[in-house]
Amino acid sequence: MENVIISVDAIWVMVCAILVIFMQAGFVLLEAGSARMKNAGHIAGKQLITFSIAALAFWAIGYGLTFGEGNQWIGTSGWFLDIPTEEGGLPLEISYLFQLSFVAVSLGIAWGGFAERGKLSVYVIFSLLYTTVIYPVVGHWIWGGGWLSELGKQDFAGSTVVHLQGGIAALVATLILGPRIGKFNANGKPNAIPGHNQVYTVLGTLIIWLGWFGFNPGSTLSAQDGFFGYVALTTNLAAAAGAVAALATVHLLVGKPEIPMILNGVLAGLVAITAACAFVEPWAAVVIGAVAGSLTVFTALYFEQKGVDDPVYAFSVHGIAGIWGTLSTGFFASPRLVEITGIGKPGLLYGGGWSQLGVQATGVLVSAIYVALTSFLILWVLDKLTGLRVTENDERIGLDLSEHGSYGYPEHLSPTGPKAVQTKAEAS
Amino acid sequence: MENVIISVDAIWVMVCAILVIFMQAGFVLLEAGSARMKNAGHIAGKQLITFSIAALAFWAIGYGLTFGEGNQWIGTSGWFLDIPTEEGGLPLEISYLFQLSFVAVSLGIAWGGFAERGKLSVYVIFSLLYTTVIYPVVGHWIWGGGWLSELGKQDFAGSTVVHLQGGIAALVATLILGPRIGKFNANGKPNAIPGHNQVYTVLGTLIIWLGWFGFNPGSTLSAQDGFFGYVALTTNLAAAAGAVAALATVHLLVGKPEIPMILNGVLAGLVAITAACAFVEPWAAVVIGAVAGSLTVFTALYFEQKGVDDPVYAFSVHGIAGIWGTLSTGFFASPRLVEITGIGKPGLLYGGGWSQLGVQATGVLVSAIYVALTSFLILWVLDKLTGLRVTENDERIGLDLSEHGSYGYPEHLSPTGPKAVQTKAEAS
Amino acid sequence: MENVIISVDAIWVMVCAILVIFMQAGFVLLEAGSARMKNAGHIAGKQLITFSIAALAFWAIGYGLTFGEGNQWIGTSGWFLDIPTEEGGLPLEISYLFQLSFVAVSLGIAWGGFAERGKLSVYVIFSLLYTTVIYPVVGHWIWGGGWLSELGKQDFAGSTVVHLQGGIAALVATLILGPRIGKFNANGKPNAIPGHNQVYTVLGTLIIWLGWFGFNPGSTLSAQDGFFGYVALTTNLAAAAGAVAALATVHLLVGKPEIPMILNGVLAGLVAITAACAFVEPWAAVVIGAVAGSLTVFTALYFEQKGVDDPVYAFSVHGIAGIWGTLSTGFFASPRLVEITGIGKPGLLYGGGWSQLGVQATGVLVSAIYVALTSFLILWVLDKLTGLRVTENDERIGLDLSEHGSYGYPEHLSPTGPKAVQTKAEAS
Repeated sequence: MENVIISVDAIWVMVCAILVIFMQAGFVLLEAGSARMKNAGHIAGKQLITFSIAALAFWAIGYGLTFGEGNQWIGTSGWFLDIPTEEGGLPLEISYLFQLSFVAVSLGIAWGGFAERGKLSVYVIFSLLYTTVIYPVVGHWIWGGGWLSELGKQDFAGSTVVHLQGGIAALVATLILGPRIGKFNANGKPNAIPGHNQVYTVLGTLIIWLGWFGFNPGSTLSAQDGFFGYVALTTNLAAAAGAVAALATVHLLVGKPEIPMILNGVLAGLVAITAACAFVEPWAAVVIGAVAGSLTVFTALYFEQKGVDDPVYAFSVHGIAGIWGTLSTGFFASPRLVEITGIGKPGLLYGGGWSQLGVQATGVLVSAIYVALTSFLILWVLDKLTGLRVTENDERIGLDLSEHGSYGYPEHLSPTGPKAVQTKAEAS
Repeated sequence: MENVIISVDAIWVMVCAILVIFMQAGFVLLEAGSARMKNAGHIAGKQLITFSIAALAFWAIGYGLTFGEGNQWIGTSGWFLDIPTEEGGLPLEISYLFQLSFVAVSLGIAWGGFAERGKLSVYVIFSLLYTTVIYPVVGHWIWGGGWLSELGKQDFAGSTVVHLQGGIAALVATLILGPRIGKFNANGKPNAIPGHNQVYTVLGTLIIWLGWFGFNPGSTLSAQDGFFGYVALTTNLAAAAGAVAALATVHLLVGKPEIPMILNGVLAGLVAITAACAFVEPWAAVVIGAVAGSLTVFTALYFEQKGVDDPVYAFSVHGIAGIWGTLSTGFFASPRLVEITGIGKPGLLYGGGWSQLGVQATGVLVSAIYVALTSFLILWVLDKLTGLRVTENDERIGLDLSEHGSYGYPEHLSPTGPKAVQTKAEAS
Repeated sequence: MENVIISVDAIWVMVCAILVIFMQAGFVLLEAGSARMKNAGHIAGKQLITFSIAALAFWAIGYGLTFGEGNQWIGTSGWFLDIPTEEGGLPLEISYLFQLSFVAVSLGIAWGGFAERGKLSVYVIFSLLYTTVIYPVVGHWIWGGGWLSELGKQDFAGSTVVHLQGGIAALVATLILGPRIGKFNANGKPNAIPGHNQVYTVLGTLIIWLGWFGFNPGSTLSAQDGFFGYVALTTNLAAAAGAVAALATVHLLVGKPEIPMILNGVLAGLVAITAACAFVEPWAAVVIGAVAGSLTVFTALYFEQKGVDDPVYAFSVHGIAGIWGTLSTGFFASPRLVEITGIGKPGLLYGGGWSQLGVQATGVLVSAIYVALTSFLILWVLDKLTGLRVTENDERIGLDLSEHGSYGYPEHLSPTGPKAVQTKAEAS
């Protein structure tokens, strides 16, 4: 009987891990589609490379640092998954794959800040360090039995651990790297650099949405009682509300329902509900998602006006919505659900007072500072050692050619277009 | 023990819901790939918007109207999923997500009739009304304990509820909207308006096929006895037979194995087996799929000749095959399987007489009339109030630019192509 | 209780079957993206057609030949799945769908050798024969209780059965068909014919990677004890190691981290671990994957230099890595895991001597010879009867137009580009 329960939980979490790993495909489509054709192959390819590095590094030491036995600050054992599986617990390998899928999402978010100008070598080194030095620390604090976990921090599936960390790293990267060539005029006015393929970006967003059915409901780490279904409901409602709110907001602000902003609204709704999904009622999920979807439009426009070139709006979508989502349980966590999950206290609206909100705010603040400092340090050192950014000429011709030796779209980008390529073949 | 069974069923239906929600990505690829580049971003983006609206509306009232306690005609309770979960039953949230995925497919089918000329505002409003006024009524009749359900109507996973409804709505829309500019010459001869990307359409069809492993096998609503495996078998056989039959048919009729027609064959096979998948033997599944695959080619060509511009053949694929599939159980339902499912009676070929066929035909007829009337009414009123169709100029420049303010493929569609965009960047 | 175990296993294997069927989408993207635009629709479309044919043929006789009761050489019963389900066993329909997904992968690999010049009719006929005459024989020998199975051959998920067979068929096809027009200069020097879309190829590789979580872990055919999680771990590590090794190797050899080679590295790592995933320790999985990833780069460059035009490197990726993977258990199979799986003996490194390595080598050799001979015979006869290759003119204009009557990318490939198409529409 117990064995069957293990099998059932193992299937559920494994399926969720697979769904979240599929989000890598979503990031490929979203980031490549939001970029120009000359960089698309590079953007897509680097995702596979960095996922591979993360998989090896998180297996060797990242998982141990995050979840191994240790102290309040960091895990100090469990290298190469050398951890005995608990009696009746989830098989360790499945736990590793599920957690790896989360690190990889966090890393995929960070890449937004490097887009269209970062060197491939920097991607390789930053992957290694992010997976072993940055992510595991905050991960341990909140999910690995560390000090924030003991304070009762509510972050069910990682608005802080995954999204805020990735969003802050992206912000630091984009600030150090500076804006893309041509993004701002001499007078500081931003120019639109539209992505080359909205079918990709919509498809990417849909795949990410789909992956979130693994992300949040899988964070129950168990299929018992079907509670994961409840988590899936709040998650889906927040995403839908984010889309509708972003549609309304961008329509009001810009006059046209710009599709990239609506996609950001979906993602922001998902990011925000990630902390709260198991703690709040469905109506609150709608509110949390709608606020996130609207907020992300404002902040995306604001940062652009302020001279920050965040090519896929990683900080607005994952950073701002990650903060809002983490704080939101301080308002909306309902007594009923806090009891079911056994984490933290009810929120302000249910008479829980300021205490939970204080814990949430502390978690956000300290985590953000840690990630900002370590990301800055790593990138600053890398900048001195090797440089972070490709040369101006390489950026102009595109990273496909300059970093990898051939275009991702050779027929589209050849001087005379596909017809000519065909003609050449005909002539051969 | 009972708890484990609930968990197991919950996992199965949740996985199926996720698979069916993934069909939204399939519809994005199929519809966008079947359209021209200038409309691709709009087509993709509207799918996320309308799915979001459907998710909220079906949560608030659609689910209650369809499945809530009520009378023979409609559910009259269960707003905001306020329904007690049955002892030992599937968690309500998972049931909602699974059923939502069906409404969203039905809506995605309807959009075929609006393609490349409908206003975004009409998509928004029609989503809201389709999810609350049209779909729930027929849904309640057949699946919610209504009068057709009591007659023993066999529609295992929705050839009528999902596909016929969507197909009829698409037909009504395309008739009211009228053909796209340039589709027909002055003498009524149709011109081909080929879709811009067959990799998308094939990929979309594959994703939809994949989603159907959730659609039909998930409609068992349980994993017990592994009966869902049987349903998966008949589903897959019908799809394969549909492909082969369409290949042969289009080769005979047109002389070339046109890929769009073969894709239609796959989809028609799937649509047809949707009603029958749990009632018929494998050999009958092959027959049902093959007939559907062949039929869809004939009707697609026929309607085009008759001056109907159905851009993605939604009525031929989902309407005609939906009718055929629903009727097919009246012929092929086998006593063995009718006993297992406990719905209706065996078909004509097994000596069941005309009775089941009569029930099936009644269901088709009444459902089709209901959807046709309500769709017509809604669209007619909308047409008077706001107009359904963008202006002629907006249609010519494409809906990406006219409805959303920027191209989905800005580099492809700029006057001088991607090379020029690059050069401009270089000059900046 | 037993019923619940059946349901649980049924869910797991069904989910895995769906994942592996999804690999068809990966093959569409990988092969189409590696080819030129003028052939993309054809490449995508033929995948659906051949999968459909395989589904019908494997249902009618292929499954019986592979897994039906028979002798050491072939199954001789079980046509149309007429096999009684074992008491307590996996439902037969699910077993069929899972095994079908494997044949379809093997066939998808073979198509690499036909790419950009094979006739559609040849695809149709070869699908039928591969699924019934070639694959089932080796499949029966190794997995259906045949002579190699009795020798204790270790091929957990098909490095030999699926990948080596597909890779050899691809090699035979590409040798008989000859190189694509323009691939080699008069002096034998190869020209690059770059694929048209690296976003597709990366996405395809990611989907195939994802599908492998069904491929290998699903080959446990059971969810009990969660052992499938272990298999998923070794699989993922080998893929990651393959990517990193290929990145390093191509950088050293060519000077640039060419993305197609890195994708090959991922796939080669996956192919190699497929035999070994349940028999080797995680560190060995890393070694096996890394060797495969490096090897595939060398052989891809080598065969190209030798005048073999293997458009998607099917033989290097699936053939060479399939051989290496099958042999690898002869070195690395650990006593602990051999005991758990109950197949064969430990490898050379664990003091198991040369015996297991001998069995593995025998299996590789005999299987390769069988596939090579039968593929050659079939293709040679087809070549005499109908010809295998389209005419030179048809190859130049592309198979979309010549085999199917319209471009897969009509707007891109029209003489004047998308803008002109739009202008024409405007003028109409």
